Amino acid sequence: MAVGGARSVLHDEIFEQPAAVARLLERERRNAAALAALWRRANVPFVLIAARGTSDNAARYAQYAFGLASRLPVALAAPSLVTLYGVPPRLRGALVIGISQSGRSPDIVETIAAARRAGSPTLAITNDAGSPLARAAGEVLPLHAGEERSIAATKTYTAELAAVALLVLSFARRRKELDALLKVPDAMERALRSEAAAHRAAHALEGAERAVVLARGVHYPTAFEIALKLKELALLFAEPFSAADFQHGPIAMAEKNLPVIVVSPPATRPEAEMRAVARDLARRGSPVIRIGPRGNGAIPSPVVPEFLAPLVSVIPGQLLAYHAALARGFDPDRPRGIRKVTETR
Amino acid sequence: MAVGGARSVLHDEIFEQPAAVARLLERERRNAAALAALWRRANVPFVLIAARGTSDNAARYAQYAFGLASRLPVALAAPSLVTLYGVPPRLRGALVIGISQSGRSPDIVETIAAARRAGSPTLAITNDAGSPLARAAGEVLPLHAGEERSIAATKTYTAELAAVALLVLSFARRRKELDALLKVPDAMERALRSEAAAHRAAHALEGAERAVVLARGVHYPTAFEIALKLKELALLFAEPFSAADFQHGPIAMAEKNLPVIVVSPPATRPEAEMRAVARDLARRGSPVIRIGPRGNGAIPSPVVPEFLAPLVSVIPGQLLAYHAALARGFDPDRPRGIRKVTETR
Repeated sequence: MAVGGARSVLHDEIFEQPAAVARLLERERRNAAALAALWRRANVPFVLIAARGTSDNAARYAQYAFGLASRLPVALAAPSLVTLYGVPPRLRGALVIGISQSGRSPDIVETIAAARRAGSPTLAITNDAGSPLARAAGEVLPLHAGEERSIAATKTYTAELAAVALLVLSFARRRKELDALLKVPDAMERALRSEAAAHRAAHALEGAERAVVLARGVHYPTAFEIALKLKELALLFAEPFSAADFQHGPIAMAEKNLPVIVVSPPATRPEAEMRAVARDLARRGSPVIRIGPRGNGAIPSPVVPEFLAPLVSVIPGQLLAYHAALARGFDPDRPRGIRKVTETR
Repeated sequence: MAVGGARSVLHDEIFEQPAAVARLLERERRNAAALAALWRRANVPFVLIAARGTSDNAARYAQYAFGLASRLPVALAAPSLVTLYGVPPRLRGALVIGISQSGRSPDIVETIAAARRAGSPTLAITNDAGSPLARAAGEVLPLHAGEERSIAATKTYTAELAAVALLVLSFARRRKELDALLKVPDAMERALRSEAAAHRAAHALEGAERAVVLARGVHYPTAFEIALKLKELALLFAEPFSAADFQHGPIAMAEKNLPVIVVSPPATRPEAEMRAVARDLARRGSPVIRIGPRGNGAIPSPVVPEFLAPLVSVIPGQLLAYHAALARGFDPDRPRGIRKVTETR
């Protein structure tokens, strides 16, 4: 039963995440190992990823994940190069991955199809193994998240992150971290227990017109995804920033009407820096909501290896966005004006 | 003399842009041709660019420019991979470019230094040919923009775009477009004549809490840069979106208190789509400020080849941000809390 509100489809799907990720890891472990061996034999020089919306945030995670585990550079595709200008990139055997919950965004499908025609290894990460994206790609990694009935993506996002982590760790042959990945669903269960704290913190967003979400390093994609959920569900104008960029210029905007969500999972490299940013913001008068180590009013996020923290620490943010929507009088199951499938070409 | 306000250093620098870009093109044409020949001989497989803030928007332009003219994939570096985690990417001979007005952002310098140590061709694009970045890189392309006294970057941004266009067109041996590039300073002069229209349009931003800036394709970096100027100068919470992504979800936020700036330079590929988005926004009640073809109250931007439009169409946006700052009671020469050099490691 949801804390502080009626049941909703979105709320159910947030709570389905540990099971969905466990299912994905169980069913796709062998497939991921085979794909990884294929890519190692192909000696791929870099990775190009095409995605939009929530899946673009999973692509951002892949950029850090491939970089950290395999030192493989990752470019995020500008799909308009293919669809608007008809000039696909020269790939030289780069691995090209399309990430899309529905597998139906035409520009993602076209980018993958062009890469496959050019002879590159291509992979579709999608929740619909029969979708146009799955058919366009040479290989498929299905998410097994079950139908996502909510307009706002939650369980397919963490499933996409899990798929990326599984592929990257298999590619890099990191057995120890692969074992840690298998325990992530338990940590996700613990993260769901942060709901009461998320519910309390959501009050600070009740009357806000805008907000900022800060993170650093591998946690930067989590800031993007939490900001997107706040926009989609709570119609709150939330903008993600790298804490590094934010301190340069935009911190000028800090004030009592600008709540800032600081994403700083426990026992991670940027923790001290994020603490300093939070202090600076508080001094400037901004209300600060921390997602991080337990204590001091933070929405707690469990300790997991830093590389895997994005799969876990987004959950308190999803719960925050859900309760912010309710507090602001919106129905999280009926976000205003959002379509499930991007039809953009 | 500035329209509707006292003289300011920022205003002077906005108006110095045509001369600054003309100077860069004249002084660096030969250097760019030599660098291009070097890179062609090295047969670089892809490009990695490290930059922050305004220069990151020049990097975004480079992504489209290299993609359109040479089908060369461009990855934007995640500097924290080097500086926070100590894991530099494996480059395999990729060209690595650092873009920084001051040449003093430690994380950009470190990323370039690591690439040079790894044997990759490296280039610094910077306004200070004696800066740490210039010393760290194997090659330098100085911007010749003259000292930038304003905290908010304007003339170094368009100079960075001009440097990128010069390099890309030299690399791709596009003589016709290189000739067109030499005429861009004239088009920039014409763009400066949009000041009265920008001044009028700025009234729509006077009482706004937030704004959206939309563009598509090669113009997407222009949306980022205009949003950044609005944040820095007018303390207006402006967020850039690809028109494609915006139509998917965030358009739900459209309403009378959310002005939207639609960047749609004349005679460019996304023009029809941008017109349709503007209509949809108006129907939903959002005040729309268009930067595009003359007429219908738009802030006019001159016709130039689409590839070069970002050098010109950002100028009406800079003028809009300048006048929005004045209208909102801020001194454009003293933006609150912004430092000129990012000190982040």
